[in-house]
Amino acid sequence: MVSFAAVEVVEDIAAASRQLTDRMPTPSIGPTPATIQRYRSLYENELFEHVIPFWERYSPDGTHGGTFNNLDRDGAVYDTTKHVWLLARQVWMFAKLYRDVEQLPGWLRLARSGMEFLRQYAVTPDKRVYFALAADGRPVYRQRKIFSECFYVMALAEYARAANEIQLMKEAKESLGALFDLAGDPVKIGRPAFAGVPQMQTLAVPMILLNVISEVAGNDLHVYGPEIDDLIRRVRLHMRDDTQAVHEYVAPGGGTLPGPTGRLLNPGHAIEAGWFLQQVAQRLGRKDVEDLALDMVRQSYHLGWDTKHGGLYYFMDSDGYSPTQLEWSMKLWWPHCEALYAHLLGHSLTGNVSDWNAFEETHRYVWRHFVDPDYGEWYGYLDREGRVTHRFKGGPYKGCFHVPRALWLCWRLLGRM
Amino acid sequence: MVSFAAVEVVEDIAAASRQLTDRMPTPSIGPTPATIQRYRSLYENELFEHVIPFWERYSPDGTHGGTFNNLDRDGAVYDTTKHVWLLARQVWMFAKLYRDVEQLPGWLRLARSGMEFLRQYAVTPDKRVYFALAADGRPVYRQRKIFSECFYVMALAEYARAANEIQLMKEAKESLGALFDLAGDPVKIGRPAFAGVPQMQTLAVPMILLNVISEVAGNDLHVYGPEIDDLIRRVRLHMRDDTQAVHEYVAPGGGTLPGPTGRLLNPGHAIEAGWFLQQVAQRLGRKDVEDLALDMVRQSYHLGWDTKHGGLYYFMDSDGYSPTQLEWSMKLWWPHCEALYAHLLGHSLTGNVSDWNAFEETHRYVWRHFVDPDYGEWYGYLDREGRVTHRFKGGPYKGCFHVPRALWLCWRLLGRM
Repeated sequence: MVSFAAVEVVEDIAAASRQLTDRMPTPSIGPTPATIQRYRSLYENELFEHVIPFWERYSPDGTHGGTFNNLDRDGAVYDTTKHVWLLARQVWMFAKLYRDVEQLPGWLRLARSGMEFLRQYAVTPDKRVYFALAADGRPVYRQRKIFSECFYVMALAEYARAANEIQLMKEAKESLGALFDLAGDPVKIGRPAFAGVPQMQTLAVPMILLNVISEVAGNDLHVYGPEIDDLIRRVRLHMRDDTQAVHEYVAPGGGTLPGPTGRLLNPGHAIEAGWFLQQVAQRLGRKDVEDLALDMVRQSYHLGWDTKHGGLYYFMDSDGYSPTQLEWSMKLWWPHCEALYAHLLGHSLTGNVSDWNAFEETHRYVWRHFVDPDYGEWYGYLDREGRVTHRFKGGPYKGCFHVPRALWLCWRLLGRM
Repeated sequence: MVSFAAVEVVEDIAAASRQLTDRMPTPSIGPTPATIQRYRSLYENELFEHVIPFWERYSPDGTHGGTFNNLDRDGAVYDTTKHVWLLARQVWMFAKLYRDVEQLPGWLRLARSGMEFLRQYAVTPDKRVYFALAADGRPVYRQRKIFSECFYVMALAEYARAANEIQLMKEAKESLGALFDLAGDPVKIGRPAFAGVPQMQTLAVPMILLNVISEVAGNDLHVYGPEIDDLIRRVRLHMRDDTQAVHEYVAPGGGTLPGPTGRLLNPGHAIEAGWFLQQVAQRLGRKDVEDLALDMVRQSYHLGWDTKHGGLYYFMDSDGYSPTQLEWSMKLWWPHCEALYAHLLGHSLTGNVSDWNAFEETHRYVWRHFVDPDYGEWYGYLDREGRVTHRFKGGPYKGCFHVPRALWLCWRLLGRM
């Protein structure tokens, strides 16, 4: 006999996936200056005392240069494979802190070590970028996607500015051009286009390109005006009117794709896209884009928050079917990192109390579940109920990036509020 | 502050992954004839009243032929993509039941519809086999692995026997030869061999080839004597003396591979390999292989069973690190299907009471968590605590295969005991 509990969970999943009823946020009058100062101190302390030191201490590879990203709870290296996304993102992070926070020689040194390792080993003979390398730099794996290239270019641009290396900045800008060519051509990426696959566009591509352009352009965002307009147009297509949700995949001109692909929602990803878009909106003074970005964040949070156990689901199905991803109901660190900053940014622009409440709800969940005061950095993976399922702090997809980026962005923004 | 519960879970994961202490099985005197008869009736009823009818009713595609595999809890098609592994396995299953149980015309018709669809659409221009097709047969995806080919050949051989089509049997034997060539050459499969990847062998390849040979050879197993000897040798390398565990990946001559790849255990997979090997051992009268197969099943069950919540973990790390797979602690239907038959087969050969207890422990877990008396077929995915996480009965990797195969094998074996 199947237990009643099992059936109940099935019903519960369907209900959670649909989640059509409104939730009442806790009434609040918004933050006082003292509250903002309290959060700022907390984020500052977490970033500079518990997160950045973890990577400074445990990630450097003293033998071959560059950094390890597969670090156990206490910082021990449990896998010497170097994942290029994470090496590049760590370079970007330390170069950013060096430029934005304090010119500590150690931070630049760490960024340089990573950048030199990447430039020496990460580029393929045909000028693409590997996904994974051995500790000594020999290639391990190459994805049929463009993200390794994206993070490589971001690292190059930020490091070039931090180290004041004009030649590297030139290289970053040229690589950005090549990236645009590549992104438009799935066959060049190495994915054969099969006849049974409908034409589609994925949210991941325009959103990451928007982020890479912002990083490379710096204060010269207007130089990429036409490209940015096109990317905003493409991101907008993912916000479907019929479901009031941000869909990961849509038809090229917008509109519904059939099957689970078309129904797939990834609330954390949509929230991240929202704040990418919001930063661009603010820099360009585009009110229409500001509103779109606010909608993306608010609706994704509304749909994606687990009202029973807290936290954001990883994947959902817009029609309430079970997503086929095994990890759909897990709570990952990065969607919560994105949500912290996205809600805070929204509140700082609009004064909206719901945005502040969403920030606080996310903050409470994060501090209760992800933070590790004993060893620093955050856990990455929880089950639906919020129990830690993986004890490591760094893995093939988790490194020195989402946590420090979110803490740094929030800390900086809280300082301006 | 991190909650105490979170830390406790981290400790608990480490302890569970290591699980070095012995467990005491419930004392038992083994099954009486009445107990065996009771299980046999239960499995017969489940197979022929609740599982096979589910696929007969809901899977056929009346428009394009072949079968759908992505079926919701109640049989509704939630995705029309046809996954070739599962189409081929369903052909194999219905052809097998037609030959072994009863020559029902409907069973042969369903197998024929699937086989014709596969022969028309699943084969690539260069004689490989696609991974996924659209409902109308247009290609959707091609994996850089050999498993689509393996299941295609198994379907071909079993259908050829059921339908008495000599030409198809010839085709199956030729395809098996081509499969052997392919399996030895990663570059031909489409996976570039990068310099930073150590030479390794995966358990999946020799075990599936052993299974495909058994299926194609039928009563002529001796024809493939040298190939079988070599495959047994290769499977044996995965049983490492130092860890007393079956490792998914080992060095080509046996021995330790570095990192998480080398430490990866997949208890359900090892248990499945165990019974594949046991069937071959019995047909060849090889006592040494019988003992190896018993060891593989018993040790994998011992290591893989979650003593706290029951069920077999999906992935483990032999040194107690957290596996990097997000779904490592989930309980999947198929390892439990394999375990039911593997334990029962072990007990039937040795009379060992521990094997019987393991069968009963697995049986109780399965009937409590996976079985769905309301709609038939079984749920596929549970969280660590045993709650159903996905309500569908068929998905990209779950179809008409593991559940009916295990029920049929156990039912047949119980009848002989």
